[in-house]
Amino acid sequence: MDSEKSGEATITIQEPKTDPKRKGIAGSGAGAPAAVVVTTKATQQQPRGGWKKGIAIFDFVLRLCAIATGLAATGIMGTTEQTLPFFTQFFQFHAKYNDLPTFMFFVFANGIASGYLVLSLPFSIICIVRPHAVGLRLLLIILDTVAMALTIAAASAAAAIVYLAHNGNSNANWNAICQQFNDFCQQTSTAVVASFITSAMFLFLIVLSAFALRKN
Amino acid sequence: MDSEKSGEATITIQEPKTDPKRKGIAGSGAGAPAAVVVTTKATQQQPRGGWKKGIAIFDFVLRLCAIATGLAATGIMGTTEQTLPFFTQFFQFHAKYNDLPTFMFFVFANGIASGYLVLSLPFSIICIVRPHAVGLRLLLIILDTVAMALTIAAASAAAAIVYLAHNGNSNANWNAICQQFNDFCQQTSTAVVASFITSAMFLFLIVLSAFALRKN
Repeated sequence: MDSEKSGEATITIQEPKTDPKRKGIAGSGAGAPAAVVVTTKATQQQPRGGWKKGIAIFDFVLRLCAIATGLAATGIMGTTEQTLPFFTQFFQFHAKYNDLPTFMFFVFANGIASGYLVLSLPFSIICIVRPHAVGLRLLLIILDTVAMALTIAAASAAAAIVYLAHNGNSNANWNAICQQFNDFCQQTSTAVVASFITSAMFLFLIVLSAFALRKN
Repeated sequence: MDSEKSGEATITIQEPKTDPKRKGIAGSGAGAPAAVVVTTKATQQQPRGGWKKGIAIFDFVLRLCAIATGLAATGIMGTTEQTLPFFTQFFQFHAKYNDLPTFMFFVFANGIASGYLVLSLPFSIICIVRPHAVGLRLLLIILDTVAMALTIAAASAAAAIVYLAHNGNSNANWNAICQQFNDFCQQTSTAVVASFITSAMFLFLIVLSAFALRKN
């Protein structure tokens, strides 16, 4: 329906040339009816549906990959736990993701983003079937942007903490904890990388949707 | 050129009216040529250019606001410095933004985003003058997405560190430093808030561009 509206209409009207001199005389050829040729090229865009469908399919595949990395990020961070083999009388050295609020936010945000991606799959399929569905693509681009913001916020906040855990900060007197909690740091780093990959995929999804939205 | 293509074509062909009475005399009558009025509304889009221009103007205003908040975030964080009034024999308590790498990244990222926003202003003006320029809008939406990713990454990484500075973390044995460096913490918090506001404006810019990109 969109393509119909924006179609290019070509109307050619050919009229018989009436000779003014002959008009005066008995009736003559003035009565020749106008030949009206109306050619409506309703859709020049129809053949372009091809690449739009291609974009929609790529969008779907990218969503599947983003689900994989998003769930991986959530899962890896959510199962991060390490207990050191030595302990004192009062304290056992134990590290879990929910010791740090930033990592809890990370699990939360990546879980939401993955859930959204799963829910967006049917809409992506509809976009494959109907490459010209503008409203749906608009909805997807807005929600993708919000999900990207969430994912990248979680990833970079966790990255800041992981960096601190690795290197510490002498100015603020914060010690590096990765010497002790080696596995813990490695797992959280992996989760952060997975989350950044998910964010990059969201960025691609937004760019793809923008290309699919444009007119020509 | 988009507007030319989509212009409304009105073809009106009026022929000299032949008087039927005189025709009777002349013998014809059958020769009355049809007055052909062809009105082709090739595009319903022309009147809609109005709201596209409105979006482009709003885009420009939003960019100006985002420049203000982006520069504020950069400036506030970049000038954050506090020296405590007491000192020991070996050490003077001094906090500056570049003590923490995350805050350096913050200044860097927000500076880049503000610079990009200033450079994007002429393009935004072109979008006001030519609301149907698709390619330009596509470029802006892609660059806006990248800039948003950068800003929100900086803001949330800094937020994670500011949170830690305020509350500390007993599990990792990281102490809160905001009891001592009160002004420092307050300034960095303000900068983080300003950066989050900039990110939100970028999100709005992306949504606006997506709306402006769609066909109808």
